[in-house]
Amino acid sequence: MTTASSPTPPPASAAVPRQTYTEIAYEVADRVATITLDRPDRLNAFTGTMMRELVEAYRAADADDDVRAVVVTGRGRGFCAGADLGRGGATFDADDPARRADRGDIGTVGGVPRDGGGIASLATAACRKPVIAAINGPCVGVGATMTLPMDIRIASETARFGFVFARRGLVPEAASSWFLPRIVGISQAMEWVATGRVFDAQEALAGRLVSKVLPPDRLLPHAYALAAEIVENTSAVSVALSKQMLWSMLGESTPWAAHRVDSAAIYARGRSADAREGVTSFLEKRPPAYPDTVGADYPDVLEPWPTRPADMD
Amino acid sequence: MTTASSPTPPPASAAVPRQTYTEIAYEVADRVATITLDRPDRLNAFTGTMMRELVEAYRAADADDDVRAVVVTGRGRGFCAGADLGRGGATFDADDPARRADRGDIGTVGGVPRDGGGIASLATAACRKPVIAAINGPCVGVGATMTLPMDIRIASETARFGFVFARRGLVPEAASSWFLPRIVGISQAMEWVATGRVFDAQEALAGRLVSKVLPPDRLLPHAYALAAEIVENTSAVSVALSKQMLWSMLGESTPWAAHRVDSAAIYARGRSADAREGVTSFLEKRPPAYPDTVGADYPDVLEPWPTRPADMD
Amino acid sequence: MTTASSPTPPPASAAVPRQTYTEIAYEVADRVATITLDRPDRLNAFTGTMMRELVEAYRAADADDDVRAVVVTGRGRGFCAGADLGRGGATFDADDPARRADRGDIGTVGGVPRDGGGIASLATAACRKPVIAAINGPCVGVGATMTLPMDIRIASETARFGFVFARRGLVPEAASSWFLPRIVGISQAMEWVATGRVFDAQEALAGRLVSKVLPPDRLLPHAYALAAEIVENTSAVSVALSKQMLWSMLGESTPWAAHRVDSAAIYARGRSADAREGVTSFLEKRPPAYPDTVGADYPDVLEPWPTRPADMD
Repeated sequence: MTTASSPTPPPASAAVPRQTYTEIAYEVADRVATITLDRPDRLNAFTGTMMRELVEAYRAADADDDVRAVVVTGRGRGFCAGADLGRGGATFDADDPARRADRGDIGTVGGVPRDGGGIASLATAACRKPVIAAINGPCVGVGATMTLPMDIRIASETARFGFVFARRGLVPEAASSWFLPRIVGISQAMEWVATGRVFDAQEALAGRLVSKVLPPDRLLPHAYALAAEIVENTSAVSVALSKQMLWSMLGESTPWAAHRVDSAAIYARGRSADAREGVTSFLEKRPPAYPDTVGADYPDVLEPWPTRPADMD
Repeated sequence: MTTASSPTPPPASAAVPRQTYTEIAYEVADRVATITLDRPDRLNAFTGTMMRELVEAYRAADADDDVRAVVVTGRGRGFCAGADLGRGGATFDADDPARRADRGDIGTVGGVPRDGGGIASLATAACRKPVIAAINGPCVGVGATMTLPMDIRIASETARFGFVFARRGLVPEAASSWFLPRIVGISQAMEWVATGRVFDAQEALAGRLVSKVLPPDRLLPHAYALAAEIVENTSAVSVALSKQMLWSMLGESTPWAAHRVDSAAIYARGRSADAREGVTSFLEKRPPAYPDTVGADYPDVLEPWPTRPADMD
Repeated sequence: MTTASSPTPPPASAAVPRQTYTEIAYEVADRVATITLDRPDRLNAFTGTMMRELVEAYRAADADDDVRAVVVTGRGRGFCAGADLGRGGATFDADDPARRADRGDIGTVGGVPRDGGGIASLATAACRKPVIAAINGPCVGVGATMTLPMDIRIASETARFGFVFARRGLVPEAASSWFLPRIVGISQAMEWVATGRVFDAQEALAGRLVSKVLPPDRLLPHAYALAAEIVENTSAVSVALSKQMLWSMLGESTPWAAHRVDSAAIYARGRSADAREGVTSFLEKRPPAYPDTVGADYPDVLEPWPTRPADMD
């Protein structure tokens, strides 16, 4: 057991900085990408720049065959305190020049500027690699809603959560009205949204927003252990396609839609080199060495969720 | 801690009786409407009159800017024991003259009389103010299903629940086949519906039908504390719109639908006086004083669920 | 309390073997059909023959008015260990002659062979009698996914679960991408699917995959007690129609769809002999004796899920 309490990932011999990010850090080690929200002096508050960098990072993780899973955490004592309120009362006013400068060319939908949190959330959802949120501290507003498209959320005992939008005159964003009730149920979602309450990690666990609460120094080790469980045992293509199947089928009316996709997917994967290796290694009681890659071998059996805003509508 | 055990709301200087109801009571105090099912000699069993009065009460709460939240409870020792079975074996026979007299002009859908429980449930769902069920005793049949469109359900230790329809030769109604699996999951829903079992508050809590179980004398104080948490901290327009967003998005196939609504909603609310006040009061560490009202400032960003049966089909 | 540890159903005077099955057993006693996966030397591993026999057994249970509920369990120490891997690395290759021989004329969808697990799962879903899984041991791969369309899952302390597909180079099948997130939530589903982990009964219970964990010798008695609770108290037609309503409404966008079905269903059932008997027996405090049967009295108010693959698409 490590005694480190920093949310920085452990030193990794293979760490590769992919790009110069300014408000996040992106590192790949041991086939796991770590995205670190990196404005510790502002509790990693969300900005237009952070949004663009997150979109880029998820695309990089999706496209990189060396990345099998993604861990997202925050630098310092916070995860993400929500939108940066440094512009005061005009923070959310789309006509405010400072907001427009912050958001940049964010595009429009239905004649209005796109919601920036949604752009980040939908890029998360479109990433085919499993995403694990390691919530190390305050996780509020868009800081909370940005975690909802992530596949697994675990939290430090020091984490605090809040869907505080109604306490700022706003509404939940980042597509959270779609995600939150599917994760915690409509009643729990309504209680947290209608009260705007800030709540602790135990309430988040009881309400099934997070699946585990850990001492601060055990948070990242647990996140990386989960990632390693995926990396060491599973086929990359299988996990990527499974993720798309599970999330997509949330939107289908009947299981027959899944049967159609399953039939195509099992046909494609059943004949794959990975399936041969998966069964053979299991029967031989040895670790698997899957040859297929997401880049080369991802089968065309399911319309993927788009990654770019212009493809979303 | 109060020692009162009555489900009557606490004395309120501002209580305003809005209309002469006969089988419910409707009072507004401290910006919270209380709907009390009020046939205590019949354990508040459901009738056509109660149905019509509930529809009217939810419409009144929705339309009244002085109402920020709604608490629903039962007078006496029951919440609602289900349909009034006083007519015996013909109670549910649409051709029975006494049933027709009880139901009145309930309208038809698909050539048959509408389900009366559904009319009440869908009026509950259409109310934009958050609705808190304070379940003080037996809550059976339509008494149980009418609570499902409510946003939060809490129960007294003395509450008893039952989706008993299959024990009467009937089926779940009040749109509960839609609501119940979304609240408790399909497996728990099937177990309760297929057995028709009557179960206690602890089983309801374990199955996530209610979010909290309290001693009888703590039930209403807790319901009003939840309501006060909403009233004192949040924007009325934000809560009303958030409620519509969360429930509506249960029916959408993908999060992109939410992104479109979010973008319009954040655009509208971000420029609002409430958002300015919400951010400013937060930064100034003072209680907020939101100027917007649902009546005047509710933005047109989402097709609301209709309130009248004729608009439902 | 019995000390028997065998998953064989208790001796039943009325047990009627309906057909000569070779890889399952099918018996009816006390108005409950028991389907026993019956390849104990292979931990009841799934084959094409087992698939066909399961489809036939669910159709028999659906059509037989003497069957009010179905219990599914496994012979010996396993429930179902997944696909039989006896053919090694080519097990899942649709071009492998041995697989084609095993699967037989399975039909196609979208130009590829149907997924065999899906054929079994969708036959389970189409059965109008409630299905209770009594999971007595390893329950892995298609062994796990075949239980998802069952209405209630209970497990022995000795049960082990695994959605191990990504550890074999495959993806979840048997329509489980539709069922699993609706039962355990998308986050729990993603964790189990992405890791492919094998987990014990307590993790299954915490994750809401099963509703109860029992000592091995209490598993079948509990399953039959649940079935008896249905058989002895409820109307067969009411339970069958309720099951179809709850599962079907998972696919509807709004509760108004349920209101339409409810109105037709309550109209039909409210005038039925069962409703008269249900109310009368309740008021007279005596056990009910419902006259209606699924075969003769099932009302035509809801498009049922089809039972044959050719009707699925």
